[in-house]
Amino acid sequence: MTFKMETSSITNHKIVRISGYDAEVLDDQLAVEEPLEIQITFRSGGRKERKSVSVTMRTPGNDRELAAGFLFTEGIIDSQKQIDGIAHSPFDENRVIVTCAPDFEPQLGSMERNFYTTSSCGVCGKASIDAIRTRSAYTNANEGLVLKKELLYRLTEQIAQHQNTFETTGGLHASALFDVSGQFMMLREDVGRHNALDKLIGAALMSDRLPLNEHILLLSGRASFELIQKATMAGIAVVAAIGAPSSLAVQLAEESGITLVGFLKKDKFNIYTGHHRIL
Amino acid sequence: MTFKMETSSITNHKIVRISGYDAEVLDDQLAVEEPLEIQITFRSGGRKERKSVSVTMRTPGNDRELAAGFLFTEGIIDSQKQIDGIAHSPFDENRVIVTCAPDFEPQLGSMERNFYTTSSCGVCGKASIDAIRTRSAYTNANEGLVLKKELLYRLTEQIAQHQNTFETTGGLHASALFDVSGQFMMLREDVGRHNALDKLIGAALMSDRLPLNEHILLLSGRASFELIQKATMAGIAVVAAIGAPSSLAVQLAEESGITLVGFLKKDKFNIYTGHHRIL
Repeated sequence: MTFKMETSSITNHKIVRISGYDAEVLDDQLAVEEPLEIQITFRSGGRKERKSVSVTMRTPGNDRELAAGFLFTEGIIDSQKQIDGIAHSPFDENRVIVTCAPDFEPQLGSMERNFYTTSSCGVCGKASIDAIRTRSAYTNANEGLVLKKELLYRLTEQIAQHQNTFETTGGLHASALFDVSGQFMMLREDVGRHNALDKLIGAALMSDRLPLNEHILLLSGRASFELIQKATMAGIAVVAAIGAPSSLAVQLAEESGITLVGFLKKDKFNIYTGHHRIL
Repeated sequence: MTFKMETSSITNHKIVRISGYDAEVLDDQLAVEEPLEIQITFRSGGRKERKSVSVTMRTPGNDRELAAGFLFTEGIIDSQKQIDGIAHSPFDENRVIVTCAPDFEPQLGSMERNFYTTSSCGVCGKASIDAIRTRSAYTNANEGLVLKKELLYRLTEQIAQHQNTFETTGGLHASALFDVSGQFMMLREDVGRHNALDKLIGAALMSDRLPLNEHILLLSGRASFELIQKATMAGIAVVAAIGAPSSLAVQLAEESGITLVGFLKKDKFNIYTGHHRIL
């Protein structure tokens, strides 16, 4: 087998489409899924160190934002200033190297793959949730923020307009950011929903726009604990999901002061937490 | 905050439902998401060892099957005989302890969280794919197996009948198993699609029904690389997904000799690989 190095988010594949009693051979488009290794280099005690911090299955594109967002939402860095540069490996399109600022040494002791893969977390979800809240640089409690329900109704059509790759492949998750007037700001896509959100938060970090407490985060699918954890880290005050939230997502949103909306459609939605922000 | 120890897969939560210009307070049902720690105990050089091998965010229920399936699909065990027993910790509902048979010492050196989180995989997907094929105890190449398309058309309504929790929460992924006559055999659900499949494969392992090369695996959502990897490990010959497959899922299915169907509906579907098995 030869391995194609994909730099596109879409690839072609010949399929047989069966419909009723008919069969035809067609060129179809697939969402690309490939491993990305994130490496970090920094100076420690005068020596240059290089560590591999993650390998994630992702859709190529916005890899540098993904690396920045991952390091931020995992609590390894907490400011854009701690990064000197981010670049693909010259030898490998599927490896990104993050160079830390000369005076910054990341705390990799805390760098379990996810904070909740610590030994305490098998025992009690509370320890995990408290750990996130302690580690987040921002508060999500923007109490002045209120939104009209009509504004939320309009978000779904906007995400459909901007989610190009999903249209052609049906295979990508999206995270989109809107301001409090409902104005579209940006959208990122990936086969992994956590990667789509890390790309978006990484883009905000690199352009020095964190915290996102004057914004609405729209998720194309379900809201899991991991996504609300990332939203908490970025100081996001309102999260709206097209799909269902999980129990632990709701619990964390409540603890973080996030308004969490689920099953968002063009004329209805459910409010799970923080309903005081919706007029 | 008090942490509720959930043993159910559903929990109640009060929501505000906004519809048009109306708002009402309702009791809604959420899919439960909680961490599960999988520990393994075994004898090594006369000493009893205990290792934590994984923490996964899962929906409670079938936890012992999940642990067995995870150990099998990660290649840590390859037979039911290597397991002496699986039980919840008496102190913690979110921890499962797998006791190995006295004569079996698991190879935990290979136990990166996933095989593809090895250093080689950032370089090349081929290394990962070859590694899986080498590690699988079974072949997926059941060349005698052929299916009529009408049989596949009937699977979607059957999964809807059996996927109870999804109906009430909209928040769970399912993996279902059918025999080659299209007869329903079992279904497992989880907030994590990889967990739903590990539960199903774990159930098959514990009842000594592997390999599943006379079966059809139905996935309620998209087919990612990770799911096809697990199907490969279990020797599954036909995988049908309601959603889209990713590029690497298609590549691995092709390499493994798996027939991969996507976008399965009641009167149409796409065949991505192994179309010779569909009449």
